[in-house]
Amino acid sequence: MPKIIQKEIISERLHKLRDKMKTGSIDMVILSNTDYHNSEYSSEYFKDREYFSGFTGSAGTLLVTKDNAYLFTDGRYFVQAELQLSNGEIKLMKSGTKDVPSISGFVSECAHKSDHVYRVAFDGRTVSASFGEKLSKTGNVEIEDTFYAGDYIWQSREKQTFNDIFSLDVKYTGEDTESKLNRIRKYMSDIGAGIHIVTSLDDISWILNLRGRDIAYTPLFFSYLIITDKKCTAYVNKSSLSDNAKISLKDKVEFAEYADFYKDIKSVVSGNDTVLADKNKINYSLFKILSDSGCKVVYRMNPSTKFKSIKNNTEIENLKKIHIEDGVCVAKLMFHLKRLAKNKETLTETDAAAFIDGLRSEISDYVELSFPTISAAGPNAAQMHYAADEENQSTLKEGEMLLVDSGGHYLRGTTDITRTFAYGECDEEMKKHFTLVLKGMLALSDAVFLKGCSGYSLDILAREPMWKEGIDYRSGTGHGVGYMTNVHEGPNAFRWRYIPGVSEYSELLPGMVTTDEPGIYLEGEYGIRIENELLCVNRESNEYGDFLEFETLTHAPIDLDLIDTELLSEREKELINNYHNDVFRELAPFMEGDDLNMLKKYTKAIK
Amino acid sequence: MPKIIQKEIISERLHKLRDKMKTGSIDMVILSNTDYHNSEYSSEYFKDREYFSGFTGSAGTLLVTKDNAYLFTDGRYFVQAELQLSNGEIKLMKSGTKDVPSISGFVSECAHKSDHVYRVAFDGRTVSASFGEKLSKTGNVEIEDTFYAGDYIWQSREKQTFNDIFSLDVKYTGEDTESKLNRIRKYMSDIGAGIHIVTSLDDISWILNLRGRDIAYTPLFFSYLIITDKKCTAYVNKSSLSDNAKISLKDKVEFAEYADFYKDIKSVVSGNDTVLADKNKINYSLFKILSDSGCKVVYRMNPSTKFKSIKNNTEIENLKKIHIEDGVCVAKLMFHLKRLAKNKETLTETDAAAFIDGLRSEISDYVELSFPTISAAGPNAAQMHYAADEENQSTLKEGEMLLVDSGGHYLRGTTDITRTFAYGECDEEMKKHFTLVLKGMLALSDAVFLKGCSGYSLDILAREPMWKEGIDYRSGTGHGVGYMTNVHEGPNAFRWRYIPGVSEYSELLPGMVTTDEPGIYLEGEYGIRIENELLCVNRESNEYGDFLEFETLTHAPIDLDLIDTELLSEREKELINNYHNDVFRELAPFMEGDDLNMLKKYTKAIK
Repeated sequence: MPKIIQKEIISERLHKLRDKMKTGSIDMVILSNTDYHNSEYSSEYFKDREYFSGFTGSAGTLLVTKDNAYLFTDGRYFVQAELQLSNGEIKLMKSGTKDVPSISGFVSECAHKSDHVYRVAFDGRTVSASFGEKLSKTGNVEIEDTFYAGDYIWQSREKQTFNDIFSLDVKYTGEDTESKLNRIRKYMSDIGAGIHIVTSLDDISWILNLRGRDIAYTPLFFSYLIITDKKCTAYVNKSSLSDNAKISLKDKVEFAEYADFYKDIKSVVSGNDTVLADKNKINYSLFKILSDSGCKVVYRMNPSTKFKSIKNNTEIENLKKIHIEDGVCVAKLMFHLKRLAKNKETLTETDAAAFIDGLRSEISDYVELSFPTISAAGPNAAQMHYAADEENQSTLKEGEMLLVDSGGHYLRGTTDITRTFAYGECDEEMKKHFTLVLKGMLALSDAVFLKGCSGYSLDILAREPMWKEGIDYRSGTGHGVGYMTNVHEGPNAFRWRYIPGVSEYSELLPGMVTTDEPGIYLEGEYGIRIENELLCVNRESNEYGDFLEFETLTHAPIDLDLIDTELLSEREKELINNYHNDVFRELAPFMEGDDLNMLKKYTKAIK
Repeated sequence: MPKIIQKEIISERLHKLRDKMKTGSIDMVILSNTDYHNSEYSSEYFKDREYFSGFTGSAGTLLVTKDNAYLFTDGRYFVQAELQLSNGEIKLMKSGTKDVPSISGFVSECAHKSDHVYRVAFDGRTVSASFGEKLSKTGNVEIEDTFYAGDYIWQSREKQTFNDIFSLDVKYTGEDTESKLNRIRKYMSDIGAGIHIVTSLDDISWILNLRGRDIAYTPLFFSYLIITDKKCTAYVNKSSLSDNAKISLKDKVEFAEYADFYKDIKSVVSGNDTVLADKNKINYSLFKILSDSGCKVVYRMNPSTKFKSIKNNTEIENLKKIHIEDGVCVAKLMFHLKRLAKNKETLTETDAAAFIDGLRSEISDYVELSFPTISAAGPNAAQMHYAADEENQSTLKEGEMLLVDSGGHYLRGTTDITRTFAYGECDEEMKKHFTLVLKGMLALSDAVFLKGCSGYSLDILAREPMWKEGIDYRSGTGHGVGYMTNVHEGPNAFRWRYIPGVSEYSELLPGMVTTDEPGIYLEGEYGIRIENELLCVNRESNEYGDFLEFETLTHAPIDLDLIDTELLSEREKELINNYHNDVFRELAPFMEGDDLNMLKKYTKAIK
């Protein structure tokens, strides 16, 4: 059961908010949990929407008007939101269902009905540039983007936390900041931009070869960056800078106070400048400052976003090593589960998660988990974003499967792996579905393609075995993975549906790392996902162009107990056998005793 | 050997052109073979570029300046252009090769070097809106879009030809013009457009259920169409209208003279109107008239383009029937060739083409070929656009293959089919490559996919068997096919590389017909292509969405003599056997004697 906040508490918070709205003649306030950098995970300081609504899901937006309040969230959270909003103060708006408008459409409707100019307020630093721009262009709407609801009412809020910032050695990054800045300045010069503003924390961390701990599951730090031809200025909480961070960037980067960014930027940018910025990453406040300055803004993807998606040789060598040690943890969990099943001993979802989290934490250069471990037994695994907790969780039953999706951040890189294990003997339908997922995963990993292909061109290879059975998995097939930054990090991805003007588009290039994670999710029954990370590599170049292929980074056994070999082609058997052969070779040095026996058993060639 | 025009003749034509340029203070003239409707095939009247350059290829643009002349063409025509331009008057510009700029880039360079405003002239009716607009925005360029080089100098030119326009009965079209206009007007109303201008001949023919014979291999007629809420005016050569054409559209469509369109349109459109037009289809002259009128133009794909790509039930039933009779012709050519090979008798490329063209012309509702039959023996088939002629052609040799790509327009629809046949015993490598092509063709035809997929999502299914061998076929996998309009007709297609902002994008929908034609082309050795037409159909709808699949329209044997069964999976054998089973069932009623025996032999199940 998710935590439910008393009706009286929510009522009081909303009451105070509406008083404040009245003072400023505000008709609607928009609240989210987003930080100033549009980070995927949010730290406590930014959880305005959660504070005012009681809804704790990772995605959702709260709209408060004089008389009503509306919480927009998507299908993953309908059940949870219904519970957490059950006190009746706030109406649930099920995004994506019939008759529910988009947020901007809803604002437009409200403004249309209003007999005066409709004043919409939010903290522009927590709203994306594109969304804010869209609202600002809506008929009869006036925007107030400096409405700080948390500051006004959430008195108990802790300050924004700033943790130590440390340098990542070149033996991990493979390229120093000077070289990275040179490449960025070359790009700026090519497009005629004199100033480049970076606000996305992954880009900044990559450029500066620094890391922090300001956001859960994301070893980044709050910061802004301004790059010009001659200067590079990083806005950070200066007192958080460790000595090695300062030394590593001496004479290359100037540091300024994080809190001064919005004040400073107004004097940095003038009407004569050409500024490069990424409209998908900057927030609306900055967008407005740039628009008001009269400067020319070239909106393009940050060059560092593409640069960092192409891992260099040092990063690749590190990744290969850490994926083996990370795979050892997954294999050990698998063997632990198999032993328990054999002995009819029980295993709970949180026990399984604690087991693997504990193993990861023992790896020498472990930093933190790359996301909260998903450990889902039986029907729970049909929920793609299931989160077990101590009070509310399942114990594995004989004949059920356990889905474990987990990963870590290490100095040697970031991992993300999913395995689905049989606890006892599973039925034929489970095995059939597991085998279909495996066929899809293998087909994509076996792809050969010309340079110029995007993930949209390849996605169907993973999906076709499921589609032929009339099943879809309602999610992308895979996402890019950062190096000690974010576990979800583009621009590369595997998706089936491209929507012109909406979807991002990026070609696959050697050095990119993308997950390959098809699945089958049957509500009320079970969920299956098999996820490996694929490194894009060169295969051959000839008169037809440059052919690329994938090398699998992830090394952990795929549960042979769940494979129906009758459904596999000869090529598929060859692929799984070659993979398990590699897994044995790489993992065996880290195994002993019964684990080593189990590794042998679970990497045995199938016929 | 292509026809070469004497140097003196070309010199004289260019000399006269330059005199005319001098009179109008023109710095550069741009000449193409394009008609006013951007049709794929051009009629003689429009071949300005051919007249002034001597180059007869289907793609190419001639730029004439005071002192020089440049012919831009693509890789398909480098050899031919080098021969035809060998007199030295005109410099060949190999588009797509290193250091050769785009045409607009070249114009920009010339304008940049000029010490006065650079005046560029062309017939704006033969230049696309987008290209003309781009030139008009080029620095230091002034456009003169009413420069009619052909009228001025090409005195011997015949008049634009207008042939009979006839009505296509609703038993062929399945929907009358009133219903089509209703759908278009609904679309116009939805987007707030009061006037819709259509200039593409396929759209007009489809809307009016009329056909003509004004362009080779394309049963269309020169025309423009203006649709408003109340009125529909067709600009045609009125004396070409047959009685049945006039009767079929009585009280629904008004006819005006083709020659009056540009005069009339200026009075039809005013500053208060909202006009719907397709920027990819209208020419620059019309674009300029619309821009100058001050009206609001909504540039979108013509609604009829999408409507007509989705074949209705009547069209589908007709297509299924004609594809059987059309397939009979292909099968008979195959059996003819096999008998000749057995008896060591010879067959030339043009004999093979004449044989199949003759068979098609005997079909009851045959109208014309849908494109010039490609009949290419041995190494000639490696050229994708090979055209044999009586003087310059090959005779099949033992162990060679013959590639025949052909099709017809019939009242019951348009066909396009390619088969590659073994003449005698072919070697193992040929068989391997033929089998790879077959695997790709079958994989795409066997696809199951969710509604929302485009041809970009599916293309890799056809290409993967070749790509895994490091081979590509350097063309799209397939194109849409019209119904008694164009053999190449979008928006549907199978392509592997999507280029944002450049490529068209369209989802695959039930009723669309697209070719599936992978191939392997080895220069100097041989060429293989297998082409079937696929009809997109519903498969099942469930909680995941609407699943679609394909039904193969084309019915003709695929040469078993060239299949290496060792390379086929069980599923692939099942697919080819099912296909051949259908082919036998459908074609047998049209066969007798040895042809029937051969049909049995060449549709036999493989094990």
